[in-house]
Amino acid sequence: MTEKMNAAVIGGGVIGGGWAARFLINGWDVNVYDPDPESERKISEVLENARRSLPSLYDTALPAEGKLVFHAEIADAVRDTVWIQESVPERLEIKQKVFSEIQDHAEETAVIASSTSGFKPSELNQGAKRPEQILVCHPFNPVYLLPLVEIVPSPKTAASIRDRSIELAKRIGMYPLLVRKEIDGHINDRLQEALWREALWLVNDGIATTEEIDDSVRFGCGLRWAQMGTFQTFWLAGGEGGMRHFLAQFGPSLKWPWTKLMNVPELTDELIDTVAKQCDQQADGMTPRQMERVRDDNLVGMMRALKKTNWGAGATLNVHDQALWSAPKVNKEPIETVRRPIPQSWTDYNDHMNESHYLEIFSQATDRFLGMIGADAKYIDSGYSYFTVETHLRHLEELKAGEQVRVTTQVIQGAGKKLHLFQRLETEDRRLAATGEHMLIHVSLKTRSACEPLESVNAVVSDYASWHTGLPQPDGAGRAIG
Amino acid sequence: MTEKMNAAVIGGGVIGGGWAARFLINGWDVNVYDPDPESERKISEVLENARRSLPSLYDTALPAEGKLVFHAEIADAVRDTVWIQESVPERLEIKQKVFSEIQDHAEETAVIASSTSGFKPSELNQGAKRPEQILVCHPFNPVYLLPLVEIVPSPKTAASIRDRSIELAKRIGMYPLLVRKEIDGHINDRLQEALWREALWLVNDGIATTEEIDDSVRFGCGLRWAQMGTFQTFWLAGGEGGMRHFLAQFGPSLKWPWTKLMNVPELTDELIDTVAKQCDQQADGMTPRQMERVRDDNLVGMMRALKKTNWGAGATLNVHDQALWSAPKVNKEPIETVRRPIPQSWTDYNDHMNESHYLEIFSQATDRFLGMIGADAKYIDSGYSYFTVETHLRHLEELKAGEQVRVTTQVIQGAGKKLHLFQRLETEDRRLAATGEHMLIHVSLKTRSACEPLESVNAVVSDYASWHTGLPQPDGAGRAIG
Repeated sequence: MTEKMNAAVIGGGVIGGGWAARFLINGWDVNVYDPDPESERKISEVLENARRSLPSLYDTALPAEGKLVFHAEIADAVRDTVWIQESVPERLEIKQKVFSEIQDHAEETAVIASSTSGFKPSELNQGAKRPEQILVCHPFNPVYLLPLVEIVPSPKTAASIRDRSIELAKRIGMYPLLVRKEIDGHINDRLQEALWREALWLVNDGIATTEEIDDSVRFGCGLRWAQMGTFQTFWLAGGEGGMRHFLAQFGPSLKWPWTKLMNVPELTDELIDTVAKQCDQQADGMTPRQMERVRDDNLVGMMRALKKTNWGAGATLNVHDQALWSAPKVNKEPIETVRRPIPQSWTDYNDHMNESHYLEIFSQATDRFLGMIGADAKYIDSGYSYFTVETHLRHLEELKAGEQVRVTTQVIQGAGKKLHLFQRLETEDRRLAATGEHMLIHVSLKTRSACEPLESVNAVVSDYASWHTGLPQPDGAGRAIG
Repeated sequence: MTEKMNAAVIGGGVIGGGWAARFLINGWDVNVYDPDPESERKISEVLENARRSLPSLYDTALPAEGKLVFHAEIADAVRDTVWIQESVPERLEIKQKVFSEIQDHAEETAVIASSTSGFKPSELNQGAKRPEQILVCHPFNPVYLLPLVEIVPSPKTAASIRDRSIELAKRIGMYPLLVRKEIDGHINDRLQEALWREALWLVNDGIATTEEIDDSVRFGCGLRWAQMGTFQTFWLAGGEGGMRHFLAQFGPSLKWPWTKLMNVPELTDELIDTVAKQCDQQADGMTPRQMERVRDDNLVGMMRALKKTNWGAGATLNVHDQALWSAPKVNKEPIETVRRPIPQSWTDYNDHMNESHYLEIFSQATDRFLGMIGADAKYIDSGYSYFTVETHLRHLEELKAGEQVRVTTQVIQGAGKKLHLFQRLETEDRRLAATGEHMLIHVSLKTRSACEPLESVNAVVSDYASWHTGLPQPDGAGRAIG
């Protein structure tokens, strides 16, 4: 994988720019040809987005970014490159002309691929010098993040070119899906187009707005489709009877006006057989029960991710979380700052909660406490906050997925710049599962360095500190390892 | 929110069971009526799945689970409940009969709702005693996790019943989408049905298998739909020109055979206007640039979540991560166990990496080190592992999204049951950003308690320990807080 790779990107819009970004961030050198004088700016904007997000997918460093060069001639852009990706406007004659010029200068072993959404490769290669070198590699926006690329050879495409495109797509982290028979719109755009046509009907007929239609997708079926597609979802809906049961139940609705798109296939025994068998095969030996758990874990993980961006299903969860939480009464006892379950997605190969989530829970407790002393979102907006500078954890008990836990927070010291907390993580039956000791420093968010808290916060934190002064020094506080 | 709520679930299959589970886990009492003798088993299975996953969505404890009671008569099930949800088979005459019996015994203020996938509420309420009490509340499988519920009143449905259903749906964490005009299939099933019909064509015509079609969805458009739906996705694809530009580009393809479903709406100026205006409104003042970043953060978060389950796009990423990593050469220096970027999703309200991810990175380093000494997946399968019992972190520098970091691992003590590690987290320019000191204990996974490591591991860890003995005691090791 240390071989130096390079690609030519012909046409640098949203799609071409996305390809360029994916190649570059995977360490490839990229030559761009685009007569648009704005192309350099447009690609640099896509690249900026990609730099911000693509490496974030990985838990390992990607190679050093490749070199980006803009060329005024196709000849110079394609010379000596291993992959040439055409993303010019969707007009057949333009594409054919571009392919002709590419083939005048490209290596004969290079992959020459089109990003076309709908043209068949046997249309694109009409009149080409070497039609065997041309195929479709259809990506999805944003190209730098979404893994899917549909690989569509024409009957004339050489097997070596087809296989090479699959191999190279994997090298840049994509999921190449070989489309075995070329067809207008390949596979995925046909599905998208079907949904899109019905969506336009709904707007046209005044049934729903674009936002309502999008909401119906992103709060519902979209979350299923993001991990299982449509057949596996319905296979699961069939329960123990699988796809046959589902088709028996919902087959008749194919004839019903559940969409305006009424050109439906005949649900023959043969089609039922094919669909049912392929779905069973696809399950790869998993029972519906096992598959349900995979689905549920995927859904929980994705929806928890959307909580972080406070978007779609995640925003709904955040509102509910907020409604479930009420600030505890404060007295001279340690304060109950967290009461929560252990998510299944927090466990690791030892089948218990991973060590890092002990700190995640304590961090949630610290945030709640900071909210209680007035170091809340508004305070942060005003330019002040607390940063943790030191943490000491004792992991005393294993925690399993689904267990209910609580955290209590005790102030050891809360004067001036320093905030010293001691927290206990307990199970429902009050076993001590962990302790967390935390030193926080009050900072100015402008200078990013220590400063005295504002009086509004200082007064409250001092009260808490004085109430907790009377408590015994917690067992385990001030401990060192070793 | 402490008011005690209750619901009746009439029909306890996958959908009815999902409703029961969602109500129960949100603290509601639930009465179930289902003549199927298997119903109790089926619901208990759905409930088991739900208990495992639904609380995992939250970072706050849900109320104590409600009481589940099975009834032999509809009369007993619906009496004194605030929400009655019908999920019997999709046959109009059965549903009408059930509604009649429900209304003989239900409170007049109770919400009486159908889970029907396709019937209109004005079909369901034919011949009902109080048609104003009946509407559709159409959920999505798994009902206990997916937030969407389509609220479809008939022209006769009372506003009070409609509003009450919306209010109650929110209380159990759902996203109620009010469907303003009743229509066969409501909104979402129409979209699903359109996609489904085209998918069946693709299988019927031998273009693709069910698995290939599902892959084209879950590796591509499905990830977009899970957070933005179809209009917002295409609005973004239009770049600075928005939906108008997108429609100018892809409008013509509505007439092309990109799907077999050719009954398309006419793309009149009026429809273009409506779609473009609604999409702009939906963007709520965000520029395409801002929206792209939201989309990218959502995609990164969801795909990272799928890495945990090693599924779909996440499995593709894991393979790539693996290919990017090669074990470091080992000598008498601390070992470079991690080299990685800081994901955008790891930052918090202070605009820097949240404290808990310091431990997540050190945990990754520890895992890599354990792999190097042979305490790998195979060793764990054989019944042994290491558990962390104590952690000490110094957070020395803020880290920003996108920064490249590395971790080095030094063995302080590695004899017998104890493994004492000291790790340094450094930025690309070698600033020390954090240190992590970790005490691990070797355990038997059967007894979950300490034991000596197997000789294969013991020999390697002793070598490492002896190589690192000559290194100076790290600055910060053995430190306590305060």
